[in-house]
Amino acid sequence: MANEFDPQVFHDELAAHRLIIPIGVQGAFGRGHVFEDVLQRTNELITRRAAGDGAEVVAFPPILPRKVLEQSEYLDSFPHLAGTVFSFTGNERQHQDLMARARDGRPWADLQTMTDVVLTPAACYPVYPTFSGVAPAGGRLVDLTSWCYRHEPSIEPTRMQAFRVREMVRIGTPEEVVEWRDMWLERGLDLLRSLGLPAEADAASDPFFGRGGRMMAVNQREQKLKFEISVPVISRENPTACCSFNYHQEHFGRLFDIRLADGRTAQTACLGFGLERLTMALFKTHGFDPAAWPQAVRVALWGEGPKG
Amino acid sequence: MANEFDPQVFHDELAAHRLIIPIGVQGAFGRGHVFEDVLQRTNELITRRAAGDGAEVVAFPPILPRKVLEQSEYLDSFPHLAGTVFSFTGNERQHQDLMARARDGRPWADLQTMTDVVLTPAACYPVYPTFSGVAPAGGRLVDLTSWCYRHEPSIEPTRMQAFRVREMVRIGTPEEVVEWRDMWLERGLDLLRSLGLPAEADAASDPFFGRGGRMMAVNQREQKLKFEISVPVISRENPTACCSFNYHQEHFGRLFDIRLADGRTAQTACLGFGLERLTMALFKTHGFDPAAWPQAVRVALWGEGPKG
Repeated sequence: MANEFDPQVFHDELAAHRLIIPIGVQGAFGRGHVFEDVLQRTNELITRRAAGDGAEVVAFPPILPRKVLEQSEYLDSFPHLAGTVFSFTGNERQHQDLMARARDGRPWADLQTMTDVVLTPAACYPVYPTFSGVAPAGGRLVDLTSWCYRHEPSIEPTRMQAFRVREMVRIGTPEEVVEWRDMWLERGLDLLRSLGLPAEADAASDPFFGRGGRMMAVNQREQKLKFEISVPVISRENPTACCSFNYHQEHFGRLFDIRLADGRTAQTACLGFGLERLTMALFKTHGFDPAAWPQAVRVALWGEGPKG
Repeated sequence: MANEFDPQVFHDELAAHRLIIPIGVQGAFGRGHVFEDVLQRTNELITRRAAGDGAEVVAFPPILPRKVLEQSEYLDSFPHLAGTVFSFTGNERQHQDLMARARDGRPWADLQTMTDVVLTPAACYPVYPTFSGVAPAGGRLVDLTSWCYRHEPSIEPTRMQAFRVREMVRIGTPEEVVEWRDMWLERGLDLLRSLGLPAEADAASDPFFGRGGRMMAVNQREQKLKFEISVPVISRENPTACCSFNYHQEHFGRLFDIRLADGRTAQTACLGFGLERLTMALFKTHGFDPAAWPQAVRVALWGEGPKG
């Protein structure tokens, strides 16, 4: 089957089953009822697996203060992926101009002004500034689900402009953070395999911008600062990262002044499950009809007894 | 109590109880664990009340194609509330410039380019373009929960830049749409009152832009095209709209070519529960500790038996 892992074919199959709902812009599609149900059930499964960890649950909107983006050095590494929010602050005459141009399909970008907010680039970014100061003994553990934005329109259904991430954030000593990261690496692999997904973990690197970015990617990989758990979804050779671990060492602790009781800068790590990607991995692996999925997978997600 | 309905006091109380988590920009705060739990339970209560309606459940990201915003005439009415997404599309030299300016706190808006997406201004906007063509007999009913964006930073915690709306959308004949709207107006009022909220329904108008907008608001109110169910949250005199009904007549049907089997343009209406506002109304009315809320309210949200 030549098309077994073709991104466009997979996109079209998802759309034909109304699992995704194309709306004319790449990576910004709607999600159908069945897709959304699988996604929510998968997120609830993660909740059950993490129930004993004692994390603090929070939620943040899909927007972030621009100042946090500027402070975080995200623009150094990923300027091309960041989305900033602009708005109209003009008068009535300029409004007439704006309407006429939008109606005629002429550019109206110059009638927009940069606001104080940007789109959240990664689920953990709003968390760090809220914990400036001294972390309690044992550190912190935070649990959130958030919409993230990346400006990378693509025909690959797995590469979205907007997507949800279930994110866990650990703040503490180097030992606490690394131990937690390693625990989740094992648990995450087990979780995905328990859903019948052919998941594999490997060291990875981020898509840093420009020529200097290539060196940063090499460093990141050599220092094993990033791991991904991947599943073949649109390619066998380049499986899709469905779970991603980033060990930031003192990066965010330094930027947002998060300290340990002994005065050292706190270390941080995060792990994120890409909820849409996990959902697509399930459809790719088990087919487009959840009623026909292996019983163990259905039980794991819906808690169904042995009905069929 | 002079401050009984002071917006700033209510904001500070919500923050002191870690129900909201300020992050330095008005209307973009995080939500704490208890706040989020109440919000999700309230949304589930709406699900149970609407369970028999047979709606098609969908989900959309917090972004919308810019083209849909341009076609929808939203920019005619609310240019000041719309948020557009910009991104960096420059080269490495421009990236150096961007980094330096962001680091030094100098403006960098001119290094951003308008993208093909905007922030979703209202939960129903992505729905209409996906139903161009002939609606089935009996019309359509759609159910979604979506993050919405409005550029109106405010000290009022009830006036957010980003917030979630549980939205129902009806497409059909004038009779079908009005009957459905009237059914929900009654059901919505009953739902809020069943949560112990002093809710009242009234005709309302949208915050149209400019001088011309004042006339539009008068027309909207006179034609009874908008109703709101409101609860005192930050003001007794100006209660907060927690549920809003908009009867668009043929507006969206005409713009997105949604037709009835007999060739007429379909009519549409939507109703949205402002989930954060509903949650804040509950905290304002019943206090900051849900364990001390009236038993009927706790049963309605958490299904608890008569424990205390």
